[in-house]
Amino acid sequence: MKGYVNDEEPAFEIGVVIPRRVVQEKDESSDCAHVLVKEFSKVGFVVERVIGIGDEFIKLAAPLETLGKAAAELQIKKRTLIGMDLQFEVEEVEAFEKQPDGSVFSWCERFQCYCHLIYGIVNNTNSAITLKFDGKKIYWEIGECLIQKLESEKIVKQVFPLHDEKKRKKLLRSWAFHWWDLTNQPIDEIYSYFGAKIAIYFAFLGMFTRWLFFPAALGLTLQFIDFGSLKLVVFPAFFIVVILWAVMFSQFWKRKNAALLARWPVSSAVADDPRYKIPGRKECSVQPPMELIKVLEADRVKGKEVFRRYEWLGRLLRFRNDAIVIFSIICLQLPFELAYAHLFEVVGSDTIKFGLTAIYLFAIQYITKIGGKLSVKLIKYENNENTEKRSDSLVYKVFGLYFMQTYIGVFYHALLHRNFSTLRKVLIQRLLLSEVLENLVENSVPYLKYTYKKYRVRHKKKREKGESTERIQFTSRVEKEYLKPSYSASIGEELEDGLFDDFLELALQFGMIMMFACAFPPAFAFAALNNLMEIRTDALKLLGILRRPIPRAAATVGAWLNIFQFLIVMSICTNCALLAWLYDEEGKWKIEPGLAAILIIEHVLLLIKFGFSRLVPEEPAWVKANRAKHTTQAQDMCSKKLLRTISGGDTKFEEVKKLE
Amino acid sequence: MKGYVNDEEPAFEIGVVIPRRVVQEKDESSDCAHVLVKEFSKVGFVVERVIGIGDEFIKLAAPLETLGKAAAELQIKKRTLIGMDLQFEVEEVEAFEKQPDGSVFSWCERFQCYCHLIYGIVNNTNSAITLKFDGKKIYWEIGECLIQKLESEKIVKQVFPLHDEKKRKKLLRSWAFHWWDLTNQPIDEIYSYFGAKIAIYFAFLGMFTRWLFFPAALGLTLQFIDFGSLKLVVFPAFFIVVILWAVMFSQFWKRKNAALLARWPVSSAVADDPRYKIPGRKECSVQPPMELIKVLEADRVKGKEVFRRYEWLGRLLRFRNDAIVIFSIICLQLPFELAYAHLFEVVGSDTIKFGLTAIYLFAIQYITKIGGKLSVKLIKYENNENTEKRSDSLVYKVFGLYFMQTYIGVFYHALLHRNFSTLRKVLIQRLLLSEVLENLVENSVPYLKYTYKKYRVRHKKKREKGESTERIQFTSRVEKEYLKPSYSASIGEELEDGLFDDFLELALQFGMIMMFACAFPPAFAFAALNNLMEIRTDALKLLGILRRPIPRAAATVGAWLNIFQFLIVMSICTNCALLAWLYDEEGKWKIEPGLAAILIIEHVLLLIKFGFSRLVPEEPAWVKANRAKHTTQAQDMCSKKLLRTISGGDTKFEEVKKLE
Repeated sequence: MKGYVNDEEPAFEIGVVIPRRVVQEKDESSDCAHVLVKEFSKVGFVVERVIGIGDEFIKLAAPLETLGKAAAELQIKKRTLIGMDLQFEVEEVEAFEKQPDGSVFSWCERFQCYCHLIYGIVNNTNSAITLKFDGKKIYWEIGECLIQKLESEKIVKQVFPLHDEKKRKKLLRSWAFHWWDLTNQPIDEIYSYFGAKIAIYFAFLGMFTRWLFFPAALGLTLQFIDFGSLKLVVFPAFFIVVILWAVMFSQFWKRKNAALLARWPVSSAVADDPRYKIPGRKECSVQPPMELIKVLEADRVKGKEVFRRYEWLGRLLRFRNDAIVIFSIICLQLPFELAYAHLFEVVGSDTIKFGLTAIYLFAIQYITKIGGKLSVKLIKYENNENTEKRSDSLVYKVFGLYFMQTYIGVFYHALLHRNFSTLRKVLIQRLLLSEVLENLVENSVPYLKYTYKKYRVRHKKKREKGESTERIQFTSRVEKEYLKPSYSASIGEELEDGLFDDFLELALQFGMIMMFACAFPPAFAFAALNNLMEIRTDALKLLGILRRPIPRAAATVGAWLNIFQFLIVMSICTNCALLAWLYDEEGKWKIEPGLAAILIIEHVLLLIKFGFSRLVPEEPAWVKANRAKHTTQAQDMCSKKLLRTISGGDTKFEEVKKLE
Repeated sequence: MKGYVNDEEPAFEIGVVIPRRVVQEKDESSDCAHVLVKEFSKVGFVVERVIGIGDEFIKLAAPLETLGKAAAELQIKKRTLIGMDLQFEVEEVEAFEKQPDGSVFSWCERFQCYCHLIYGIVNNTNSAITLKFDGKKIYWEIGECLIQKLESEKIVKQVFPLHDEKKRKKLLRSWAFHWWDLTNQPIDEIYSYFGAKIAIYFAFLGMFTRWLFFPAALGLTLQFIDFGSLKLVVFPAFFIVVILWAVMFSQFWKRKNAALLARWPVSSAVADDPRYKIPGRKECSVQPPMELIKVLEADRVKGKEVFRRYEWLGRLLRFRNDAIVIFSIICLQLPFELAYAHLFEVVGSDTIKFGLTAIYLFAIQYITKIGGKLSVKLIKYENNENTEKRSDSLVYKVFGLYFMQTYIGVFYHALLHRNFSTLRKVLIQRLLLSEVLENLVENSVPYLKYTYKKYRVRHKKKREKGESTERIQFTSRVEKEYLKPSYSASIGEELEDGLFDDFLELALQFGMIMMFACAFPPAFAFAALNNLMEIRTDALKLLGILRRPIPRAAATVGAWLNIFQFLIVMSICTNCALLAWLYDEEGKWKIEPGLAAILIIEHVLLLIKFGFSRLVPEEPAWVKANRAKHTTQAQDMCSKKLLRTISGGDTKFEEVKKLE
């Protein structure tokens, strides 16, 4: 086990919350909190008890040995030095690739191990154990899971990941407050601290912002320099350049993502999301096709048939769900949005306008909530392979809703007025509203929530203690963190976390600046500036205001990249339409050379959009070469041994037997 | 070695041709032919000498033991029963998956082994050996390759694969003459006999023809039933249906291909094409980036940089080549084709028209030849990964040429006359010409070549023997096969074989029927009928008229599928243009509701085209499940052993050392 010993004290990474007791148990051995601490220590955790103002906390840290044991039990697959994913073994720890920060396990793997250990505590004795808590008696049955039992009795209020104070401070200094770094971020450290998915978000945001500088400069030039008679050429040129830029960005992001994945030892076969290993959360009722695989093994022809039916049934269900979503968006949401836009236009009085907007804003809050809930329900009947696929499916469905909500008003204005200056006004209004206001809300709401929670705890305490005039201070950090809000999505917690909102904001911004690029070129500068802010405020939010998020296993942008690409295609079409309107001022709808040219440009751009992905591969050559080298090494190394296992006495293979 | 013994006599599969000698050598031991036979027997071949009329032949057959030895020497990677590709070992033969016909090696692997063995015969003695042939003395130096030496001395005229008479007869019966099977073909047997690439061609042709029946029936209905006033709706509907059909076909073909690959134990990492292992052929001067991989191992950062430069240089070269090809097609070929189309239209006299066409046909023969040669030259400077990628690159480049050649005339007519009946006439003319005539030429030219060659040999013999009046009969089958033409492409032999012409015919036909679907719906019926013929005539050609082709390792359609998809996109655009013309009879170019509807249809169809590939995955679920199961098995089986090898005493991994 050399090289496995870590000199540093392990940091506390998980907190367990139990209510503060009124009555202190005399017999310590049957006291709930005491038993919990004992059991945690027995498993191998380093345990610390903290008595807070409102609740009591048990902080857990796991030394490497404990984690290793849990990982071996979980049969976690980790990338080895030869690039192959193999099941973790404690003895062969040297064979596995280290994390960028030198540790053996990533945060996501550690969290998985913690959950496995915490929820793996069962009553191993021969009789039920009696636990006492605040005078209440609880019978811990044989083979029952302790935490689940206590959770159902409301004694364990929550199990949540804790911030690692040292690393958090370091990240605050090197990342959140490092404004002059502009788009540069310590991505590897973010990965170590928050896991792959969040690091990928920030890498994406950084690269997007860096790339935005170019069209931003171009857009500003277009805005402030008068091109005179060249104006008719300048806008189409800008449009073409911007589309090419976007196409290149989406392709080069794929390469960047592949390069990041090569740097981080993330298992290529994404394991099940650890968020769903926590029994406290609702689990989705998806049947993994294990029995199907068994059928396939037993009888190939029949198995193929069964598999085919399973596959097409799933596809049919997904198609039905998509149809329902699209249908309801078009038939329910579209009229609503159009009605609002129209009323807003027609109504003269400002007060009524204000009231209308208030009602509208109130309504869409509910609409999106209901939409999200409905989508999650629909997705439960789909047979998506893993949770990431399920959350992708959710993202597609919900994005349709937001797409309508955000753009239909703008389209309405564009169609109604057919006037660039009005359209520009609407765009500026929307951009400012969505960007600046949302940024503000996004950061202040969690902080207000946190403050309110603190106030409530203090208030309760004061009432209990009677009239104690001195101000109650929260001395323990773990209690403060417990009161902080978690990183959750606005559409519900089932499948997505706060990343949904952050990506949504980015995608809506991208759509806004791209789809109306010709109408308002300086929007790119707006977006670039906003994203520069966004990087630091999001960092601050994650490090300062929120609890440490539960890590997710996936290491790609997922559905969002497809949405970006869809927006690029949409923007080719809408910009062409805008240009056609621009040149066809009399509204005669005649195909003149100008319009014909626009149609040709559109087709060429669409061709480039779909051809470019062939030109630039999604994976850099060095990543490919690296992997090819690795697999060849692995196979050559144990080729003979493997062959003997396959052809030899191993009785697992019926095929061999049949041949003999 | 149980289960490894084959009761049947191995069939002769390779023929070596040496000229018939005038002088018979007295000392047999130094006679070239004798030495060859001796050396071949020493290697392990079963050898048979046949004295033909014009030449002498050595037929070679290899027992399994010989092939196994060669395969182990070549380190051929084969699919094992657990689905992993591993290097072949003679002792562990049971671990490898069997071919569909029960043999251990596929025809492609056998051919590789034959080549390795034949060209592996070197002078192992301590001194040069003197060989005599027809009075000439040849010194076989130490370590020199015998066959290459004799080839350079023109004593070995050719090494070529032989038909396996028994299997050939069986295939003729069950495949080529089995007309009433329509599109059903014994694909597994074709795979066993001809290799994966040709089997894939016939599977593709069969599936395409089967799918064609549907639009053919629809097209005929449209032709013969008068829809009256509904006509304006029927054509767009037909167009939409046909595009959807084509999109679905291309996606379902990918699934079919994946299913076929799961059935045949073809190594997923396509090995180098065996055709290029024959030193007799010109080898392409491509440097595999082996030294680059070494750099990457030594220094990651520098290696990445080097790799990036290598990748982008290659991409730049390919881009330059593509630009050259596109530029020359547009600037040189397009004016030529337009000039011909225009002249043909302008000229009144029929004789001049006939002469013009003759000159044109003569000219395009040369143009395509030159184009092919040029493309091959250009491709030599590209750093494509393997020969299949190189031949794909060639296919793209040359297809541009043929695309212009075939369709520009039709487009010219369509634009000039803007009249559906004229366009229909042109289409019928082209379809009949290209389909029927080409089929005739394709099959009769090789036969005529063969007959002429036979005649020449006979003639020569007669002249030598003086006035022998009796008719000379070719008694030996091997000599007849030697005289048969090989399966080669019309654009040159460097990178493609006869499959190029067959796929080209199919692609041009597909483009013709799809791009003008609205103008001439019954074209689909033409195509279906023609393809039914094509299946059997191609089978007959391969089995009866030509030599057995050299097998190719690749097992996909390659570039052609992309070309099919490109043609689908093109046909969306052209059909929309055709419909616009159809409804805009006065040529006013006004956007009326009809035209707007067409534009919308176009955009929706393009969206479906590019969205459909997301809806239907390219790989059936059972293939995926099967593979996943296999790899998990493999990894679990030797996980511990592997880990020990990686982390243990193995000094190959500098990374481990650094960490310790």
